[in-house]
Amino acid sequence: MTPPHWPAAVVIREVGLRDGLQSLARTLPTARKIEWIEGAHAAGLREIEVGSFVPPRLLPQLADTAELVAFAKTLPGLVVSVLVPNLKGAERAMDSGADGMLLPLSASRAHSLANLRKTPDEVLAEIEAMVQSRQARGSGIRIEVGLSTALGCTLQGRVDPEEVLRLLRAVLQLGVDRVGLADTVGYADPRQVMALFGRARAMAGDRLACGHFHDTRGLGLANLMAALHSGETRFDASLGGLGGCPHAPGASGNIATEDVAYLMASMAIATGIDMDRLIALRARLALWLEGECLHGSIARAGLPKTFHRPQSAESLNA
Amino acid sequence: MTPPHWPAAVVIREVGLRDGLQSLARTLPTARKIEWIEGAHAAGLREIEVGSFVPPRLLPQLADTAELVAFAKTLPGLVVSVLVPNLKGAERAMDSGADGMLLPLSASRAHSLANLRKTPDEVLAEIEAMVQSRQARGSGIRIEVGLSTALGCTLQGRVDPEEVLRLLRAVLQLGVDRVGLADTVGYADPRQVMALFGRARAMAGDRLACGHFHDTRGLGLANLMAALHSGETRFDASLGGLGGCPHAPGASGNIATEDVAYLMASMAIATGIDMDRLIALRARLALWLEGECLHGSIARAGLPKTFHRPQSAESLNA
Repeated sequence: MTPPHWPAAVVIREVGLRDGLQSLARTLPTARKIEWIEGAHAAGLREIEVGSFVPPRLLPQLADTAELVAFAKTLPGLVVSVLVPNLKGAERAMDSGADGMLLPLSASRAHSLANLRKTPDEVLAEIEAMVQSRQARGSGIRIEVGLSTALGCTLQGRVDPEEVLRLLRAVLQLGVDRVGLADTVGYADPRQVMALFGRARAMAGDRLACGHFHDTRGLGLANLMAALHSGETRFDASLGGLGGCPHAPGASGNIATEDVAYLMASMAIATGIDMDRLIALRARLALWLEGECLHGSIARAGLPKTFHRPQSAESLNA
Repeated sequence: MTPPHWPAAVVIREVGLRDGLQSLARTLPTARKIEWIEGAHAAGLREIEVGSFVPPRLLPQLADTAELVAFAKTLPGLVVSVLVPNLKGAERAMDSGADGMLLPLSASRAHSLANLRKTPDEVLAEIEAMVQSRQARGSGIRIEVGLSTALGCTLQGRVDPEEVLRLLRAVLQLGVDRVGLADTVGYADPRQVMALFGRARAMAGDRLACGHFHDTRGLGLANLMAALHSGETRFDASLGGLGGCPHAPGASGNIATEDVAYLMASMAIATGIDMDRLIALRARLALWLEGECLHGSIARAGLPKTFHRPQSAESLNA
């Protein structure tokens, strides 16, 4: 066998405040979200998706996104991103002062219609308008397109990789800064991940800069490892694996931030994360969200006695 | 990146009847164990570790092992193995008609003393006696040594890979048929697995024929993928992830058979397993063991609608 080349460091972006909280019926108070952002930053996370600029009547849980951006921007070195579904959301994101915005583009036509009431090509046109709006405003906000249902769809079933790559090429041509591939519904397998990320990287190079995996069927970390192997070094994750419960009772949502951080630490791949602080933060989240289903293994089992705590400058200064 | 070479098929050995049931305070009645073996065989599993020839006073849960071997040997094509801790156990295994016996050898001195009250070198001497006994009897039983705590130990902490390889070389020289490497306590990480399996394979060749992983810290399938990548094609697993609860409440034990089978099926790697039958068997196990903690994701989340059911001869004939 050829041993893989592992990177020296990876970036984990916390998306629980958006992908996690949007899946809950309850609304976490703004003060708690601020504690979460503060705690995540103190634990060494340096990228957080704090919310979404969708109409508050659709997702009242995320109605305080502008306030969260404003707070998060006060934390040193933190890259603050938000999800935006359309041009209006993009304009709010640019007004908010966020560093980056994530534009979802479903590779599944069925999912795209259900989620955004637009076909993928109509979403492409909206993305073009967003890129133009950024230019017209002279905004420096970073635009990332997240290709959702890129590895399968609960509505449509199989998603053709050729369609994923067609959409990928199209958004790259529109001039977005980054693209990511998302297994939105937990259908992916490692072989498929390696193949798709490999082809996407050949097309996008380092502009392919996010793997987003759900652990619905237990393959979340195996899929992440496959993406890591293919050269990906930036991953979304959600504290406590929050998200994904409502439509699949008992099933996990996003891969858990603390499990990804532990996996990376165990392989001596730097993330800047202080595991003890992150696990303590998860315990607080569990109290705030009493009754919700949190996931992940390392918080229950505890760190191994052989665990090596890196003395990173970030965790020392936090 | 270099895409890995995935094998066309892997073997999953069910070890829940031994590694799972020995961790429970209760004893599953023999009739239920027979249903389990029968159901596992009907679901396409072709290797089952049905029990252990340890003194019944130490593990009363496994006192019916000889009866289980006798039953399991009536099932066509089933490879029946048992764990044996010492020469006396090995003689009972040979008397039983089992196809193979697994001899555990802890790479951690502390674990070896706690588990078998012998140092690793004293266990080596016992293994030599077992090999000689087999020869003296003219028995055709297959001898496999499972190097436990090969990737870390809760008692001792770090386990030196040089010591693992020293013990591996010693048992190969004694003439055992197969060796396996076990992450008995769920301390391993994929990088470590790839390195150790790579070195062990260079020494043992195809006689390295088992990866045994626990999912205690969520890395079970990621570690299995690392071993698969390194060339391993035979894995232990336990239905419902049974095992490992008593000493780590809420934490998983062995990797779940159904999750490993799903992972392999998702990658189009043949196992001969019928997922629907296996998941149905797990549901029966959950009833038999009401109140015990079962693990695994695929049984809760369900198969994806895109899941491809291979029309294997074995599953059609079962």
